[in-house]
This record gives sequence, structure tokens and C-alpha cells, in this order.
Amino acid sequence: MSLIVQKYGGTSVGDVERIKKVAERIKYTVARGHRVVAVVSARAGVTTELIARAHAVCPDPSDRELDMLMSVGEQETIALTAMALHANGIEAVSFTGGQAGIQTDMVHTKARIRAINAEAVEAQLDLGKTVIVAGFQGINEHGHVTTFGRGGSDLTAIALASALKAERCEIYTDVDGVYTADPRVVGGARKLDEISYDEMLELASAGSKVMQSRSVEFAKKHQVIFEVRSSFNYNRGTVVKEEVSHMEDVVVRGVAVDKDQAKVIVSNILDKPGSAAKVFRALADATIVVDMIVQNVGRNGIANLTFTVPQADTRKAQKALDPVLEEIGGGHVAVHEHIAKLSVVGVGMKTHSGVAADLFKGLADADINIDLITTSEIKISVVIELDRADEAARITHRVFGLDGE
Amino acid sequence: MSLIVQKYGGTSVGDVERIKKVAERIKYTVARGHRVVAVVSARAGVTTELIARAHAVCPDPSDRELDMLMSVGEQETIALTAMALHANGIEAVSFTGGQAGIQTDMVHTKARIRAINAEAVEAQLDLGKTVIVAGFQGINEHGHVTTFGRGGSDLTAIALASALKAERCEIYTDVDGVYTADPRVVGGARKLDEISYDEMLELASAGSKVMQSRSVEFAKKHQVIFEVRSSFNYNRGTVVKEEVSHMEDVVVRGVAVDKDQAKVIVSNILDKPGSAAKVFRALADATIVVDMIVQNVGRNGIANLTFTVPQADTRKAQKALDPVLEEIGGGHVAVHEHIAKLSVVGVGMKTHSGVAADLFKGLADADINIDLITTSEIKISVVIELDRADEAARITHRVFGLDGE
Repeated sequence: MSLIVQKYGGTSVGDVERIKKVAERIKYTVARGHRVVAVVSARAGVTTELIARAHAVCPDPSDRELDMLMSVGEQETIALTAMALHANGIEAVSFTGGQAGIQTDMVHTKARIRAINAEAVEAQLDLGKTVIVAGFQGINEHGHVTTFGRGGSDLTAIALASALKAERCEIYTDVDGVYTADPRVVGGARKLDEISYDEMLELASAGSKVMQSRSVEFAKKHQVIFEVRSSFNYNRGTVVKEEVSHMEDVVVRGVAVDKDQAKVIVSNILDKPGSAAKVFRALADATIVVDMIVQNVGRNGIANLTFTVPQADTRKAQKALDPVLEEIGGGHVAVHEHIAKLSVVGVGMKTHSGVAADLFKGLADADINIDLITTSEIKISVVIELDRADEAARITHRVFGLDGE
Repeated sequence: MSLIVQKYGGTSVGDVERIKKVAERIKYTVARGHRVVAVVSARAGVTTELIARAHAVCPDPSDRELDMLMSVGEQETIALTAMALHANGIEAVSFTGGQAGIQTDMVHTKARIRAINAEAVEAQLDLGKTVIVAGFQGINEHGHVTTFGRGGSDLTAIALASALKAERCEIYTDVDGVYTADPRVVGGARKLDEISYDEMLELASAGSKVMQSRSVEFAKKHQVIFEVRSSFNYNRGTVVKEEVSHMEDVVVRGVAVDKDQAKVIVSNILDKPGSAAKVFRALADATIVVDMIVQNVGRNGIANLTFTVPQADTRKAQKALDPVLEEIGGGHVAVHEHIAKLSVVGVGMKTHSGVAADLFKGLADADINIDLITTSEIKISVVIELDRADEAARITHRVFGLDGE
């Protein structure tokens, strides 16, 4: 019998009615002759509630105790899901991350999986049981509970699929799969049947919120093929796997828009070695993730450094930069929040030229000004005016022949 | 440094404000040079909420999954309590029952403690940390979570105090200690400074709700001295320990009234061997706890069997008895719910005669009719009319010289 690992996120198990639906879907899979391991998240909202209580008793709760507290959310869901399966006549047993043998490093709230000892899960599968595993959590070598941070339940599912050599891994979420563009913005957006790990990673970094990069990276490293699909219908989703040859026929796989970035310009920097390093060291020390970086130097040896950071971090970025400004020549900092980043992604770009030219011409024809440009092997990103971002996405989608009929 | 085990019940940790108060009290103890292990329950109401969710997904949830679900309640409280201690500058670490080395048998929802491997707790104490342990739960030899049933957190505290050879064990609750009678009913009721295990056990079985018998039995068996006291003030409570000689000077330690019993009369039974056995076998199979039992046989060989059961179980008792009535001679069942059980308890009774006579005379003088009577070595219980129970308690309290000044 083939083994399928399924993952249900917080919205999919949001209340008891939803949990019953998840149980029905698991039953549907079992009834088709598969063995199932289901990874579930905490009910949507529970983790936020727990953290609020933590802050009510302690202004700066320790990560170790936060993990002990937050892991409660998934533990509730696994028990309820197992019960809902019992009510459907399916033999099921629930396991916390620790009980499922998910061993992590010693870091709390952002633990990394070190190893999975899947014997206990395998023993239950051999008894014919469906196993429900708490996502997002494991234990470290001292037996303390650890959690993985955002997107942690996806990681649990993909790591378990790898350890158990599952035939399939299904990530159930509240969208139907990965689209060529955001369907709420681009009318002609189509769901992709498949996509490569690298494209999925570039789409994630380009602002498409389907999954965290970390889980996709893990899947790529361990060659776990997984399918992103909706828990609210039985439609096929998007299969994510290593690049395959026919994929190259498609030059651009998708268009993504990220409206959560802000542009920061550090101007009038003395163009001498080490200036840029000082700027980005200061931002890194403040744990600010910098995305696009562009530098240009004028004739007079005065440089401008432009980059994008998450909008939520702009104040933190300004504060972090204040102390270094004098060191680097008394430059000054300007922040522009009224921008968006538009990206086109596709492994086909590796072997096709002209993608950048087509993108720029499409935008120019619509009189949309391009501010910054960065490129990677399979992605081109441009910063444009926020107000025209949706229009730009529609135009680009059409330019690259992605519109459905 | 002396070690104190403290236990805080569900009301004491009922919300974040209460949890902060508990942290202050633990800090108070630590500041006096003690090492502290604190056992905490789930916030009042949480367990009920979780069970309601269980029944919403499954009409008959499995005990194994109920344990997985319910243990979440204490796990939340231990983390929040540890955080609240951190906010008070006290180094603290939280442990689930399993992490604290509390090993149980394989029974779910009513597990019994088999052994405590206290090494992990001791290691943290040696590091100077305060250890917060989840009450009510342990793990079995398969590593599955088990829970202990009602009063389970008291049991955790007393068992840990025994395993850790603690100097003191303090059970914090919402009452000031054990009283000679219910102070809401008997104006002159006084808090007892000390009481023996046996008296405490008889008071519990007589309807005094301070603690479950099970924890007191465990304390008696392992000779754990503990103090019952309030978490809402700093008053001294009641110390519970083995009988000591001067205790015998007091004949009656306390008066208890139980209004939750109902009287069942099975009449017209053929007085032949095995009739009573059949009745009580049927009740036991229906897990109904029978308290007082009285049988009297008339001249004609027709017997009446009278006993008391919890009021909540009267319907279940009638149903359980239906099939056996014919076997035992076609007797019939009558239920009287309008009764109360009044008990006087004291180890001094062992060596003093006349207690029963004093009790009966006191009630007779007030024209209160006695229905059933049972006695044990240190307790006399009578069933009387419900409406006169409070008055009877006040009279009895006075008769035995228990009234305070």
C-alpha cells in the first residue's frame, strides 16, 4: 500500500466543523487504499491568542517557554482530528512532534530539524492506523519542546515524507495551488499543473505567499515531490518537483507582485571600500532582510545605495543606519513606501534571451516607469510605482502568453 | 536549602492575573531561601471547554485521545507560570508530567502513578531553578500521555514531594484549610491546625470537598505531610499528617454534611443468600459508587435493602437494577432524593464511648428524625431529612464542643 503524507494548515482545521471535513478527506484517501500520515497545524488564531497571554504575564517571554506554550495549539488539533477520524470509523492515533521522533537542534522558536526517528510512526502504520502528527514542533536532545517558526507545519510534512519515503506529499491550504499570477488581480491567471523547486522558491521570494522558502528548500534538497492543493475542494493542485526537460519550453512560469516592500535610498556616500559593507552589516545586525540592492556611482566619487526592505522594518532600518551614516561620509537616508516589486519567474529564462527586453517593453508601452531592476538566473524583478502594480501584472501576464483562454 | 512542593489548582491559576499572583507567591517562598517545585493545574474551565470540543467532533472520544487533548490545559499553565516567574526575576523552567519523569500504568483518563524518575527535576533544582510541573498527567511506558482523573494535580504534588523527599508540601486552593464544619452553614466553625490522614479521608467520604480521597491515601501510604491552604491570602492552613497522640484528646474533629446523596430502597426481596450480592454486582457493573448500606429482614423472610448513591446516578441505578429484580424475588425499587448525610469524624472515637449516644440525643432533642445509621472506627454517619441538614450540623457542632468563641 502506498503511503501519503498530508498537511492541513490552520485555516483547514480552524474549528470543529473544519476538523470534521479534514477527517472526511483523510477517510476518502484511506478508502482508496492508501496509508496516511496527516500533519496538522494549530487552529487558525490559537497561536496568536497564546502569545498574547504570554505577553500578558511577561514582557519578554523566554523562547524555551514560548515553545512549550505554542506547541499546545497543535497538540489540541491532533487529538481532535484523531477523534474525528474515530467518529468516521477510521483507526487513528495522534503524536506530538516529539513522539513522532522529530529531533531538532537546541534553538527555540526557530529550531531546525536534525533527524527523524520514524519508528513509532511506522509501527502504528504497520498496525493499519492513520497517524496524526503535530506540525511545527519537535524535541531537542534534552527532551525539551522546540518549534520551527513560520511555515513550520509544511516543513514537518515534507521532512516526514522524506523520512518515511512516502509516495506522495500533499500540502492542503486555502488556495487551489500555485497560479501564474494572483487570480484576484489578473483575470487570466491559470493554475499551474507543475512547477520546479527553483521557480517555487523564486516565486516565494517574489512575494507569492503559498509557502515559505524554507520548506521548499528542504524538499529540493531531499527531492521530496509535493502537491499544493485546496482542502476546500477535490481539484488537482500544483505538483512541485525538480526541473524536468519539457518545463524549459515555457519561458516564464509566473508573475508575482510584492506590495510589502519599501525602497530605501542612502545617498551621498563616499565611494570608498567598506561603505556598503557597513550599511548592510548594520541592517543584518538589526535582523532586517534586505531584498533588492542597486548601487550607482556618480562622476564625483559620491555613491547612492538603493535597496528594498519589508515595509514593517523601515523605521527599524532608519534607526539601524543612523550610527553608520557619519562613518560613511555623512550620507542621508530616504524611504519610499509607495512602491511595488514585480517579478517574472521561469527556469526557461536560463536558455532564452530577450525576456528582460520583452518585460521592459511591455511596461514602457503602458507608460509604467521602472525604478530598480535586479535579475537572477530564473527571475527578473523590477520596482515600479505602487498604484500601477496590478495593471503591470496584467500586462506582463499577457506579454508572456500566460493568459488562459 | 529546604525543598517545598507547592500545588496551585485551577481557580488559583484561573487567568493571567491570577497566574501573576501565583508567581509572586512562589517568589515569596524562594526569597525565604527555599527551593520550590510548583505543580499547576489547567486554568479553571479549560478542561471542560476541551472536552466539549472533543464531543463536538466525536460522540464517544477514545480515552487515549482525550488524554492527549486534556493534557494541553496544564501545559499552557506551566509555560505561563514559568514566564510570570521570569518577569519577577526568578529563574524557572516548566516540565510536562512526562518530562518530570511521572510514569504511569497503561490506563487512560484514570491512570495510576507507577514511579517517578525525578532526575530531570533534581538537575534543574541543582542549577538553582524553580521547576514548574504540569499536574494531573504523566506518560506510560509507550510514551503516550496519560491523565489521572479528578484531583489529579494534588496527586502529582504529593507524589513529587515523596519522590523528591521535600520538606513540605503545600496544597493551595480556594479555601483556608480544613474546617470543623462548613463555615457557610455553621457560624462557629473553626479552621483546624492539624488533622490526621484518616480523619481527612473520612471527611472526604462524608462530603467535605477539600481534597479527593485518592491523594490523601497516597500521602498516608508514603507518609507525606502536607498543608492545605489558600492561594488568596497568607494565612496558615491545615496540616495533614499521621495521627499523633495529643490528637486523641479531641473526640470529634469535624462535622460534614453531604447533600448529593439519594436513598434507594429495594423492598420485598426474598431473604436468601446471594440477593444482596446480585444487587451490588449490578450497581458496580454500572460503575455506581454505593455509600451507606443497611439491610433489615422482617419475620416473613422478606428483606429490605437500603443504600445511598450519588444523586446524579439514581436513574442509572434504577436501570441497572431492573434486570435483577425478578431474579431476587420480584422486589421493587424506590428512590428518595430529599435526604442528607450528616457525619461526625474523629480518631478520638477509637478510645471514647458515648459519641453515638451524644449525637443521637442532640438530634432527638431538636426533633430531627434519623433514618439510616452507619459507623466506622472513626466516623458515625446518619441520614436525615434534607431540609433540616444545616440545622442538624449546627446542633451537632455545638454538642461536641467544636464552636469557636
